[in-house]
Amino acid sequence: MRSKEDSSKIIIRSLAKAGLLSKLHMNIFHYHNPFPLELGGTLPCLDIAYHTFGTLNAKKDNVVWVCHALTANSDVADWWPHTVESGCFLDPDRWFVVCANIIGSCYGSTGPLSEDPATGEPYYYDFPKLTIRDMVKAHIILADDLGLTDINTLVGSSVGGFQAIEWAVMEPERFRRLILIATSAKASPWSIAIDETQRMAIRSDATYGERNAEAGSKGLAAARAIGLLTYRGPWGYNATQQDPPCDGIPATHRACTYQKYQGEKLVRRFNAYSYMTILDAFDTHDAGRGRGGVATALAGIKAKTTIIGITTDIIFTPEEMRELTAMIPGAEYHEIESEFGHDGFLVEHRKLNSILV
Amino acid sequence: MRSKEDSSKIIIRSLAKAGLLSKLHMNIFHYHNPFPLELGGTLPCLDIAYHTFGTLNAKKDNVVWVCHALTANSDVADWWPHTVESGCFLDPDRWFVVCANIIGSCYGSTGPLSEDPATGEPYYYDFPKLTIRDMVKAHIILADDLGLTDINTLVGSSVGGFQAIEWAVMEPERFRRLILIATSAKASPWSIAIDETQRMAIRSDATYGERNAEAGSKGLAAARAIGLLTYRGPWGYNATQQDPPCDGIPATHRACTYQKYQGEKLVRRFNAYSYMTILDAFDTHDAGRGRGGVATALAGIKAKTTIIGITTDIIFTPEEMRELTAMIPGAEYHEIESEFGHDGFLVEHRKLNSILV
Repeated sequence: MRSKEDSSKIIIRSLAKAGLLSKLHMNIFHYHNPFPLELGGTLPCLDIAYHTFGTLNAKKDNVVWVCHALTANSDVADWWPHTVESGCFLDPDRWFVVCANIIGSCYGSTGPLSEDPATGEPYYYDFPKLTIRDMVKAHIILADDLGLTDINTLVGSSVGGFQAIEWAVMEPERFRRLILIATSAKASPWSIAIDETQRMAIRSDATYGERNAEAGSKGLAAARAIGLLTYRGPWGYNATQQDPPCDGIPATHRACTYQKYQGEKLVRRFNAYSYMTILDAFDTHDAGRGRGGVATALAGIKAKTTIIGITTDIIFTPEEMRELTAMIPGAEYHEIESEFGHDGFLVEHRKLNSILV
Repeated sequence: MRSKEDSSKIIIRSLAKAGLLSKLHMNIFHYHNPFPLELGGTLPCLDIAYHTFGTLNAKKDNVVWVCHALTANSDVADWWPHTVESGCFLDPDRWFVVCANIIGSCYGSTGPLSEDPATGEPYYYDFPKLTIRDMVKAHIILADDLGLTDINTLVGSSVGGFQAIEWAVMEPERFRRLILIATSAKASPWSIAIDETQRMAIRSDATYGERNAEAGSKGLAAARAIGLLTYRGPWGYNATQQDPPCDGIPATHRACTYQKYQGEKLVRRFNAYSYMTILDAFDTHDAGRGRGGVATALAGIKAKTTIIGITTDIIFTPEEMRELTAMIPGAEYHEIESEFGHDGFLVEHRKLNSILV
C-alpha cells in the first residue's frame, strides 16, 4: 500500500508531466515602497515573481537560490531541464529552490509592460534604465522578506551569473556555496558589442518606440537571432543544422528556418522593451565598480565557489572563465566538453549534474 | 641620374600616396550579350569593373588573379594593405595582378543599382538572384577577353575563396597555383545562419524594398555590425575595444561606438540590395553541387594549392580549413596565429607575405 506521501508525489509528478506543476509554485511578492535605481530615478513600487520548489526545512539552511539569464523566468524547472529533479543538483527533495524573475523582464516582475502608477499606462519606452545591481537589490528585498538570511547555495549562469557574482560580493556572509556557470565578473567589450548589435537590429525596426507591446517585434526577432548565433557558435550550428543531402540548390536552408523560427518564438513570449532593458543592464555589469576593481571585489567573496566553463562557449570563453576562477579565493574550475557553445549550460545537464550533485 | 623608368615609378608612388593610383588602374569591361543565370533569368548585358597592377609580360605567364570578399571591390591595393607592394606576395614589379568586382556588387560591375534596360530604372529589389558560379562565370568572360588563358596564381579569401574554389574546379587547367585563405568549399549551416540573421536585420527595416539606393540603410548598418562580430570574434574585440579605466558606469562603451560607426561607414559606401544579393549568393556556395559532392569536385583541382587558416577565425574554423586541405590533392596548410579572427586575413599581411612570397 502506498503511503500518503507517495500518493502526493505521484500527483505532483503527473501535474509536472502535464506542465501544470510550475504554476503551482509561482508567487508574486508586492513591495510597496519606492525602489531607488543606481542610474537615477525610482520605481514607485515593485512586483517580484518567484517560484519555489521543495520544502524549506526548520533550520532554513537548505536554500538554493537560482539567478536566471536574459529571457528566462522564475520557473527554473521549465527552462533548465533535468536540474529540479530527484537526484539532480537542484533536487527538490533535498533543497528549497528559489528563483525570482528579474525586474525589467516580463514574467511577473515589474518591467516596461507594467503599469506606471504616474500615468496608469504601461511604461514601454519610458521604463527607467536598470543595472545588474538593481536587479540583485530587488531580490535581496525578496530574500529578506522570505526570511532567507542564510542561503546555502547561490547559482547563476550567463546573465544569471552576473547577478550571482554581484550578490556574493554585496553580501559575502549570506552564502555558503556559489556556483557560476558560463559567466563573467564584468561585461567584456565583445559581449557589449553583441548587445549593441542587437540594439541596432531593434532600432532598425521603426515601430520600436510605439506605445504597444508589439513595438519593434521584427527587430526583436533579428536581435534574438543574433543572440542565438553567439549562444550556439560554429560547432553548435554545424552539429545540428545541416541540410539534408541535396544535389541542387535547396529552396531553403535548415539554418535559415531555425533563425527565423527562433526569432518569432521569442517575439511570442517576450517584448522589445524588456529585451532592451536587460541588454542595457548587461552592459553595466562590473563587479569591481566603486570597489577598487574586479580583482579586489572578487577577493571579498567568502562562499566556496565552483566555476564551470564550456569548451566551445564564444561569449564567455574558457580562458575568461579560468581568469575568473583565479580571482575568487579558493574557487575550483571545471570545464564541460560540449559542441553546444554557451547553450551548453542548458543542454549539458547531465555533465552539470555530475559536477554539482 | 634617374632613368625614365625610375621617374615613372616615383610618380606612380606619389600618386599612390595621394590615393590616386587606384583610379588609374580601373577599367570597365562591357559585355553586350545576355548572361544566363544559374537560378533562372538572364542579365541582358554585363559591366565588369576591374583593376590591374603591374605589367603583363610577353609570355602572359605572370598573372595573379585576386577574388574579393563580400563588400570589397576591384582595388585590391586599397582593401588588402601591404600586399600589392614591392616584395609582397602581389608584387606589381613581378606580377600582373587582376582583381574584378563581382556582379551583384556596387563598385562598377552590374548590380541592383545598375539600370535595368527593360525599365530604364535601377533594378533595386528586382535584381535577380545570383550564385557564386554566376559571379565566376562573369569573370571567366572577362579573363577570356583579356586573353589570360594561363593564370599563374588564383587567390581568394573568405567569399573570394568561394569564387576561387569554384573557378579552380570549373577550369582546373587554367591555374598553376591556388591560394585559399579563410574560406570553404561549401557554405556551412553556421555561416548560412549568420547570413540569415543579417537578412532578418535588413528586413526589419521597413524601408527595405523602396525604390532608392538608401532603402534599408538602418537594417544594413545592423547587418554589417552582425558581420563584424563574426569577423573579429571575442579575442579581436577584447584586444581592441577595451574601455578606458572608469570607476563609474561609462556614458558609452567603445565597443558600442565601434559597432555603430562601422555600420554607418558601410551604409555610406554600399547598399542593402547589393548586400542581400551577395548574402544570397553566399548561401548557394557548394563546390560539389552537380559534381558528385564536395570531395569529388575538389579532387579535380590541378593547381598547386596553399591553404591558410587563422587560429581564432570563428567563421571558417581551423578544423574546417584542415578538412578543406585534406580534400585538395597535394594541398599544403598553414595556420596564422592571430587574435583578429577572420579579419586576420586583412590584418596579418606580414604573416601572409612570409608564407606566400
